[in-house]
Amino acid sequence: MCRWIAYSGTPVLLSQVLFQPEHSLIDQSLHARMGVETTNGDGFGIGWYTPDADTPAVLRDVGPAWSNRNLLEVADHVRSGLFFAHIRASTGTAVQQTNCHPFRRGRWMWMHNGVISEFHRIRRDLALAVDPALYPEMEGSTDSELMFFLALTFGLPEDVPGAVARMAGLIEATGRAHDVPLPLQMTLAVADGERAWVFRYSSEGRSRSLYFSTRVDTLRALHPDAAFLRDISDETRLVVSEPLGALPGAWNVVPESSYGIIQPGGEDALHAFLPSEPHASASS
Amino acid sequence: MCRWIAYSGTPVLLSQVLFQPEHSLIDQSLHARMGVETTNGDGFGIGWYTPDADTPAVLRDVGPAWSNRNLLEVADHVRSGLFFAHIRASTGTAVQQTNCHPFRRGRWMWMHNGVISEFHRIRRDLALAVDPALYPEMEGSTDSELMFFLALTFGLPEDVPGAVARMAGLIEATGRAHDVPLPLQMTLAVADGERAWVFRYSSEGRSRSLYFSTRVDTLRALHPDAAFLRDISDETRLVVSEPLGALPGAWNVVPESSYGIIQPGGEDALHAFLPSEPHASASS
Amino acid sequence: MCRWIAYSGTPVLLSQVLFQPEHSLIDQSLHARMGVETTNGDGFGIGWYTPDADTPAVLRDVGPAWSNRNLLEVADHVRSGLFFAHIRASTGTAVQQTNCHPFRRGRWMWMHNGVISEFHRIRRDLALAVDPALYPEMEGSTDSELMFFLALTFGLPEDVPGAVARMAGLIEATGRAHDVPLPLQMTLAVADGERAWVFRYSSEGRSRSLYFSTRVDTLRALHPDAAFLRDISDETRLVVSEPLGALPGAWNVVPESSYGIIQPGGEDALHAFLPSEPHASASS
Amino acid sequence: MCRWIAYSGTPVLLSQVLFQPEHSLIDQSLHARMGVETTNGDGFGIGWYTPDADTPAVLRDVGPAWSNRNLLEVADHVRSGLFFAHIRASTGTAVQQTNCHPFRRGRWMWMHNGVISEFHRIRRDLALAVDPALYPEMEGSTDSELMFFLALTFGLPEDVPGAVARMAGLIEATGRAHDVPLPLQMTLAVADGERAWVFRYSSEGRSRSLYFSTRVDTLRALHPDAAFLRDISDETRLVVSEPLGALPGAWNVVPESSYGIIQPGGEDALHAFLPSEPHASASS
Repeated sequence: MCRWIAYSGTPVLLSQVLFQPEHSLIDQSLHARMGVETTNGDGFGIGWYTPDADTPAVLRDVGPAWSNRNLLEVADHVRSGLFFAHIRASTGTAVQQTNCHPFRRGRWMWMHNGVISEFHRIRRDLALAVDPALYPEMEGSTDSELMFFLALTFGLPEDVPGAVARMAGLIEATGRAHDVPLPLQMTLAVADGERAWVFRYSSEGRSRSLYFSTRVDTLRALHPDAAFLRDISDETRLVVSEPLGALPGAWNVVPESSYGIIQPGGEDALHAFLPSEPHASASS
Repeated sequence: MCRWIAYSGTPVLLSQVLFQPEHSLIDQSLHARMGVETTNGDGFGIGWYTPDADTPAVLRDVGPAWSNRNLLEVADHVRSGLFFAHIRASTGTAVQQTNCHPFRRGRWMWMHNGVISEFHRIRRDLALAVDPALYPEMEGSTDSELMFFLALTFGLPEDVPGAVARMAGLIEATGRAHDVPLPLQMTLAVADGERAWVFRYSSEGRSRSLYFSTRVDTLRALHPDAAFLRDISDETRLVVSEPLGALPGAWNVVPESSYGIIQPGGEDALHAFLPSEPHASASS
Repeated sequence: MCRWIAYSGTPVLLSQVLFQPEHSLIDQSLHARMGVETTNGDGFGIGWYTPDADTPAVLRDVGPAWSNRNLLEVADHVRSGLFFAHIRASTGTAVQQTNCHPFRRGRWMWMHNGVISEFHRIRRDLALAVDPALYPEMEGSTDSELMFFLALTFGLPEDVPGAVARMAGLIEATGRAHDVPLPLQMTLAVADGERAWVFRYSSEGRSRSLYFSTRVDTLRALHPDAAFLRDISDETRLVVSEPLGALPGAWNVVPESSYGIIQPGGEDALHAFLPSEPHASASS
Repeated sequence: MCRWIAYSGTPVLLSQVLFQPEHSLIDQSLHARMGVETTNGDGFGIGWYTPDADTPAVLRDVGPAWSNRNLLEVADHVRSGLFFAHIRASTGTAVQQTNCHPFRRGRWMWMHNGVISEFHRIRRDLALAVDPALYPEMEGSTDSELMFFLALTFGLPEDVPGAVARMAGLIEATGRAHDVPLPLQMTLAVADGERAWVFRYSSEGRSRSLYFSTRVDTLRALHPDAAFLRDISDETRLVVSEPLGALPGAWNVVPESSYGIIQPGGEDALHAFLPSEPHASASS
């Protein structure tokens, strides 16, 4: 169990999103409300894009987010218009930096909440499906990192929803082959520096919670007195494991088995998400 | 807010006390029930005496106890008949090894749950009362370490209850002089390798919780089927911030404003504890 | 023994200064050439100013700089025109974040290489000289942090060279009073976000090494082919514990018992530095 | 590049071997003399057997050994008659606990100095050769841990030299198949709680340094005044990456392509070591 936030919109200090809201992500590291575990103290990570770098910066550490001074320092001094943050509750794998989210490869970032059921039984089969050229880059031992490398194998840079669908399809198929009844639980965020994609899916159809924020212009009409809404663009969006703040009308459930794309100037829309057979359409 | 355990009796693997009981201390690091904070993830420490060393060993680290592998390794392989364990929830001071309990000087160990109220306002005055020869040995920034050095200043090795009373008296007096209404909250454990002393006190008379275990022979009569009670001596004792396990009749409240001495062959008894004027009777 | 760098000038990615030069500071963390110790692996810190924050950001951690991924991430993604970096070789005090440089208070940053001799013997007397209102803010156990708080006590924000002189004077006087023959060794960097001050001094007149870079326009004339010199302003300056890179003519010794001020548009000059009697002129 | 020590003989405090000798292993963490790297500050580990546990205790951490207080505490308070210690200089893989030696499975311990050349190119092929039942237990990303799991796959518990030979043979064959000219460099120590095995081998026949100590009765005759030799049994042995102490006659080179067995009451002997074809004789 973990908690995460994806932000896209007007560049802000990271702390305005991560620390300042009521029931912020950092508060959730001590007191989450909607997760299986109320404490998410097994490491954390943030990743942010800046205009003048090809890759996002990723800061990850193994202690709890609530007491980490470097996280607070960076959040108080760095601005970004596209960033991720993740707090981890280990489901058994080691508490180490290489197991913390977000994971990065080139300009791509990836973070996950959920689990591959009975991962130890199917880990090897899934790892063998990773492109041999990518295999040596895996550094940690989590299901989440392996999911990222499977999606990269299945063509993530060319077709995000397709690659994620093939990744999920492979996990479903491999799990079933090993008699794992409900192999996959996931909420997922992916970004390339321009856009972000978010997914909500589980084999059982009862996925981990996920919410997206209402359009800022709509919120502004509802809450004309909320000063902070005046400083951010209409298209600014947050996607979160559980709601922050206390603004009525601000949060909407991401439906089961769906995904969304967040992009400047684009029309946000939710689409159906279904795992697909990986071998038929894999790009590599 | 913190939680702690003091053990005295038949030498056992530390893990038998720290990890195996229901609602163990390690479980309390994630889910304490009786404290102000339910999570105690800001570092931990264990200290244990062995027959062939003059000083106790102290292992302390900054992450949560629940995920620390070295703690588990040591607890699974080290036996002791007198040991302390402590899990920390910082009340504001830095999460660092030198702020973790137990503190040690020579053969003496010290751990604390509670707080000196408005510590930042009276820290300097208290630090000036520390024996100048001891002052440079203070390494951390907690009220708890400073309390230890005050007690050492006031003659801890010669008279434990007296030195603790003078320490508490100085804190009460210094607090009052700075208009701090209720200066001190403490449960405290001290040991010298032969004996352990435990204290429960607060200015307001509503102290942090503290329990001691019932004599093992009494428990054995109550629970003739409890196998683990057969392997430990009649005099084996635990003192804990909150009860472990589920054995009816096993736990007794340490009364307000009292202290106890735990020693092999001695008669355990609880005594009244009152702060005393430090200057009248200080040994240095 | 430590090593440090202070940068002032054209905003650059931190990594261009910290990682890329030949014999960079990060390389010096493993293989310093001019220090008492060749390894500086007991923690590190960076501090940088950004245009839109009142305080500098400070990132500090306890492991060696050479293997710290978060340091590399931040250095590769953050630009600044005024920043400090420090790598630590402990002279005995604990390896903990609160003992890492730079230290910060408000908009002020401070870092130090050197030592107060026999610090344990005079630590208490020096700590008592700290403004009681500042005393509780000291979090670590180093001589360097205490020097910073003494300088703050003696009016650092109003008169940097004067406050540092009074701080040094107090250490000299206190040391002599305790029969410490050569109390102080220091190279020092201080900044307020607009300017930086650097100091080189020791009781014995044989101070730790310190170098400042030649004016960029002079270097450009000497090395017309050095491409990187074209991208930075004439006034860009580095002050370093030991030279980086291999550009002939680039480095100049900061003389014994002197200090310099680095400021945009100002004329850089070196001035004599002498400790002064603190009590005569202290501002508080 | 790493450094290690294996000790077998009279139970001693770990610190007597790890800290007290001249040029001790802890000293080598800062100033190794014979390795490719002089600093071994990328983590460390110790593993020790005790009479009353089925498995060895393993304490590993990511910072340098020289400043780790927990290592010193445990070394000063734990006695063992069979223990390993290892200090790490990463050859590129992450500095994390799961990459620190010794590695353990059940009663088996394993530590390594050396490298699989161009590991990233052959890591996947080697990982596929690991017994699928063991594959999910691999937690780190080092060549050393993978070597351990290959040896376990090839029957380590039944035949240590045979399993290590098959492991080395597989690495040689896989390396050659990928045009890696000199695939393997290793000194290796393995133990099961009763015995220890040490190996020295490299593809190029110029292996990392390894030394074993002279029999204590011989040393005692050479140095009748060396008091510490009186307290340890004739059969006490050390095997080390580079010599400790300054006792003439104490150290002997482990020859190229050889291995030795250290066991109580047994006759120590060195045997030739050659990689073997893994598939012909693998036990699984």
